[in-house]
Amino acid sequence: MADGDLIHGLVDALRCLPGVGPRTAQRMTWHLLERNRDAGRRLAAVLVEAMDRVGHCRECRTLTEHERCSVCASPRRDRSRICVVENPADLVRIETGTDYRGVYFVLMGNLSPLDGIGPGDLGLDRLARRLEEREVTELILATGATAEGEATAHYLAEMAREHSVTATRIAQGVPLGGELEFVDAGTLAHAFSGRREVVV
Amino acid sequence: MADGDLIHGLVDALRCLPGVGPRTAQRMTWHLLERNRDAGRRLAAVLVEAMDRVGHCRECRTLTEHERCSVCASPRRDRSRICVVENPADLVRIETGTDYRGVYFVLMGNLSPLDGIGPGDLGLDRLARRLEEREVTELILATGATAEGEATAHYLAEMAREHSVTATRIAQGVPLGGELEFVDAGTLAHAFSGRREVVV
Repeated sequence: MADGDLIHGLVDALRCLPGVGPRTAQRMTWHLLERNRDAGRRLAAVLVEAMDRVGHCRECRTLTEHERCSVCASPRRDRSRICVVENPADLVRIETGTDYRGVYFVLMGNLSPLDGIGPGDLGLDRLARRLEEREVTELILATGATAEGEATAHYLAEMAREHSVTATRIAQGVPLGGELEFVDAGTLAHAFSGRREVVV
Repeated sequence: MADGDLIHGLVDALRCLPGVGPRTAQRMTWHLLERNRDAGRRLAAVLVEAMDRVGHCRECRTLTEHERCSVCASPRRDRSRICVVENPADLVRIETGTDYRGVYFVLMGNLSPLDGIGPGDLGLDRLARRLEEREVTELILATGATAEGEATAHYLAEMAREHSVTATRIAQGVPLGGELEFVDAGTLAHAFSGRREVVV
């Protein structure tokens, strides 16, 4: 990006964004400087405010600028079901893609003993307190279908059993529109063993 | 991204960056808030400063925070050759990828009558004044091999002839490591008609 420490500094700073390498950062820098300085200034202002003011919901741990997120604060949500997800993006995906009307608990990660991430780091003590409240009847485990996601789901299922709460796991199988030819062996095995009777 | 106007605001603001759609912006927002708030604050500070202080080199028009860019300010560059490029990123690519030691002129675009971009918008009056100075002997046309890049190069070649300056165009042909099988017909035709005698 030609010239000067300031331009190089902006290219470097943009690389803190995930998925942004040197070439992309250069293109972003050039775009902002050449075509959209106002957007650049606006981005800077929002960044400062968000970095300073966004915290975690004290009930479900998702990111929010308020004490409680909009889901937890809503009187219309069903508090007898808690859906556990790995991160706030997964929460949004479930909110926009399903008709789920219960509440959430956001782990902000997965159990990973090798990385030193234990139940305390995921706020599971707080989740346990919520399971103790009598109103919870179902804990929906919506962590990823990865080794860590499965291990975390297993740990949470044990926790649910201790509190006499039903634990359910989101289904694994062939994705919508997926042809069997292109599905990996593990997914196919899951889909096969998880087969259901067809009611006609 | 869960919650609140501030988080949505950050997701929206990040979309001013080229190539960043809603999903990517969400992932960036989550990454900054969850893992790297210091980097987010640093990015904001550099953004503000760059948007306010970066301008154009008064000689070659590239982006710089100084009055003249480092190339134009250098006493070691050969001022008898001017390489015309479309944008500052192309300048950097030539600087890092070739041993060119002349100076540049950055169009910041291409001639595009349909979009209302004429010679004045590309600063060609300033380039004409530089061609009038006796020391320039070669104008290297390094605009892209696109329709607009070719039209701009043609216009610049006419300009060079009027000032009795030699205009050269960067070569078009099969890219390094390119197999003929995978080269498009237009490139192959250019490579064929631009063939050179092999001196052994």
